[in-house]
Amino acid sequence: MEKVYVNNLSNYIDKEIVFSGFVDVVRDKKWVQFIILRDSTGKVQVTVEKSDEGNASMVDLVSSLTHDSVIKVIGKVVNNEAVKLGGIEILPSNIEIISKAEELPFDYNNLDGVNIDTRLDYRWLDIRNEKNMLVRQIESCLTEGMRKYLYENNFTEIHSPKLIGAASESGSEVFEVKYFDRKAYLAQSPQFYKQMAIAAGLDKVFEVGPVYRAENSNTNRHATEFTGFDLEFAHIDSYEDVMSLEEDLLIAGLTLVKERYGEKIKEVFNTEVIVPTKPFPRIDLKDLYKELHELYNYEIPETDIGDTNAETEKLVYKLAQEKYNSEFMFITGYAATKRPFYHMRNEKGELQGYDLIWRGTEITSGAQREHRYEELLKNANEKGLGEDVKFYLQFFKYGCPAHGGFGIGLDRLTMLLLGLSTIKETEFIFRGPNRLEP
Amino acid sequence: MEKVYVNNLSNYIDKEIVFSGFVDVVRDKKWVQFIILRDSTGKVQVTVEKSDEGNASMVDLVSSLTHDSVIKVIGKVVNNEAVKLGGIEILPSNIEIISKAEELPFDYNNLDGVNIDTRLDYRWLDIRNEKNMLVRQIESCLTEGMRKYLYENNFTEIHSPKLIGAASESGSEVFEVKYFDRKAYLAQSPQFYKQMAIAAGLDKVFEVGPVYRAENSNTNRHATEFTGFDLEFAHIDSYEDVMSLEEDLLIAGLTLVKERYGEKIKEVFNTEVIVPTKPFPRIDLKDLYKELHELYNYEIPETDIGDTNAETEKLVYKLAQEKYNSEFMFITGYAATKRPFYHMRNEKGELQGYDLIWRGTEITSGAQREHRYEELLKNANEKGLGEDVKFYLQFFKYGCPAHGGFGIGLDRLTMLLLGLSTIKETEFIFRGPNRLEP
Repeated sequence: MEKVYVNNLSNYIDKEIVFSGFVDVVRDKKWVQFIILRDSTGKVQVTVEKSDEGNASMVDLVSSLTHDSVIKVIGKVVNNEAVKLGGIEILPSNIEIISKAEELPFDYNNLDGVNIDTRLDYRWLDIRNEKNMLVRQIESCLTEGMRKYLYENNFTEIHSPKLIGAASESGSEVFEVKYFDRKAYLAQSPQFYKQMAIAAGLDKVFEVGPVYRAENSNTNRHATEFTGFDLEFAHIDSYEDVMSLEEDLLIAGLTLVKERYGEKIKEVFNTEVIVPTKPFPRIDLKDLYKELHELYNYEIPETDIGDTNAETEKLVYKLAQEKYNSEFMFITGYAATKRPFYHMRNEKGELQGYDLIWRGTEITSGAQREHRYEELLKNANEKGLGEDVKFYLQFFKYGCPAHGGFGIGLDRLTMLLLGLSTIKETEFIFRGPNRLEP
Repeated sequence: MEKVYVNNLSNYIDKEIVFSGFVDVVRDKKWVQFIILRDSTGKVQVTVEKSDEGNASMVDLVSSLTHDSVIKVIGKVVNNEAVKLGGIEILPSNIEIISKAEELPFDYNNLDGVNIDTRLDYRWLDIRNEKNMLVRQIESCLTEGMRKYLYENNFTEIHSPKLIGAASESGSEVFEVKYFDRKAYLAQSPQFYKQMAIAAGLDKVFEVGPVYRAENSNTNRHATEFTGFDLEFAHIDSYEDVMSLEEDLLIAGLTLVKERYGEKIKEVFNTEVIVPTKPFPRIDLKDLYKELHELYNYEIPETDIGDTNAETEKLVYKLAQEKYNSEFMFITGYAATKRPFYHMRNEKGELQGYDLIWRGTEITSGAQREHRYEELLKNANEKGLGEDVKFYLQFFKYGCPAHGGFGIGLDRLTMLLLGLSTIKETEFIFRGPNRLEP
């Protein structure tokens, strides 16, 4: 018989079902035993009457249950207003132990005093914490919402290779792989391959997959491996089209999250899911500097002129909220020197790209891409990359549509959505310079 | 103005639109020029009347167009029964060259004489071939159909790390990565991490992501990097539940493909998409040997007893079609020695797993997994893996539901669906021992 889930129990009132789950709590009273069982959708009470002689062996079994063992219960679902958990309980006719748990190394319901490394060592126990389990479900939901939007808009999903023959874009910060009798590298982004798909004529593509950064830095925002949500589409007029699509994409993702988890997020994360409306406010970098100076007496440091930095991004959030009543803000007008060579510049040399700031953090750099071979070669040479990206430049020799796109770090997006403090507890399994396990 | 796609043109009759696409053909006649333009959804004719004086500069531009250049046309969509391409043409008021194509190194419309390595070197041109572009779109559609089924059934999508600390499962055939001052390895499958998610209580998970095999073999079926479609779910009674879910999943994927591309696949690949019905036929290995002997006078070689091989799989297809009128067939009763240590065995030592054969090729090994720590340790030790998988064994010490799952090679599935002859033209970008480019 198929397992019934907690969130579906009310459809089985007065019926015999099979329920299996983790033993959350056992309360062994004088006349009755209560077991609280847990699955990924919630908790339910199982009630064993000790006075019932037929229950004798079950009572013994329940007495022996350890916390987080998994049991399988055959029993009847009944309404009982006295039961706090949804007014429902299961009256079992049989209980079987599926997996007996040893004593856990820490209490995942109370992680305050637990070292983050201990938590990561035992990540599968850490995720049993209600909050951490929700992070996983919500990240999946957010991806589902965005993916559905792309499917509906005829995007093709691609899977580009992560093993690449040349360390391109930036030679440093790339992992080296022993590849038979030569070297390979792990891709830092699917950028070049998304664009190859455009040159192939696929018109609209996206990819959700791992990206790698060999940065030896231990911060709360960096990981050596994380999940990128990347897309690229053809036949655009300008980067305005890219910004517009990103608006729609985020609205689709956040709408589904709010619908499905909005209440839960308020309750557990004390955070409101705000679905933005189009258009998000846009500001040119020069105007931004001016606004930040006038409103917050902030002066951008000399070295960051033409760009934003972490401090600016925090103030952008303040500005976006106070002046535009928005959590999001697009910034345009970055200096071409501060952005990759494949971002298009117009005839005045102005960068045809943007950053998107959400809740004080940059979540995307997007752009119209340079699709004209001669211009691209010139830009690459200016950055001293001509030789490194030779294979990539070929994509643009035989006809290539105008196109643009962006990438979003999925874990960073989830972290901001739920107000989490570190990427270590946002990724399913974190990878950093000192962390390859489990 | 947003680009209109070919498959949507009929909604714009007598309207002014923007159309951009690749120049497929130019026919420069005495009184008229025809340009056939192509996007990812089809082809359309653009007609320039030479007699119209206003068209003079456009006529010159069209004369200069090279094959596969990309142009942007502003014009009116009109009905014209004489036009073979859907009875529609565009009458342009302006044409702009977006990207001028050099002469192509080969004719992608006629790939018969073109070496596969040349095709892969210029993969973005190779994909412009109608058939190859369809492969990409259909693989995406198949994934979409399967993914939707899982979303509807409350599966959580995970992204497990590909960088791992220990070369597990089988030490050979794994890629080594220089990871700061130590070594990392590329995961051969998400198996252990799917199961970690089950132990964490996530109940139903799936992942679509890259898997790595450092096999130095150059065949039509092997790649060093390919896309795995993997899932795992909890609270099952037996591997029958896993087979049942795999049936539903494949039916969902193939239904969407047939709906959206069935006609096109018949036309271009000369293949019928057959959506199977539940249940797929099942046969025990011993009965299979007997049937194959009786019907086809086939005797399994001594070394393969307890298993199937490529030849058996071909005959299984024959048997499935002739006796069961099915393209699919489940085989059960494999020897435990022929399968991984984490596949469950019952008290008689019988393996609780299966293979699924489609069109003569194994597409999945699925199983109920061993979730009992002591049994799992015993099985691992029997295979001499006890030390290697120590970290994995920990997942089962603190309570773990009964569970099972399987993995499907997405590219292999697509290859069989479309009757392609090699994985090299099925993967978006193939990776093999001698191939890391582009």
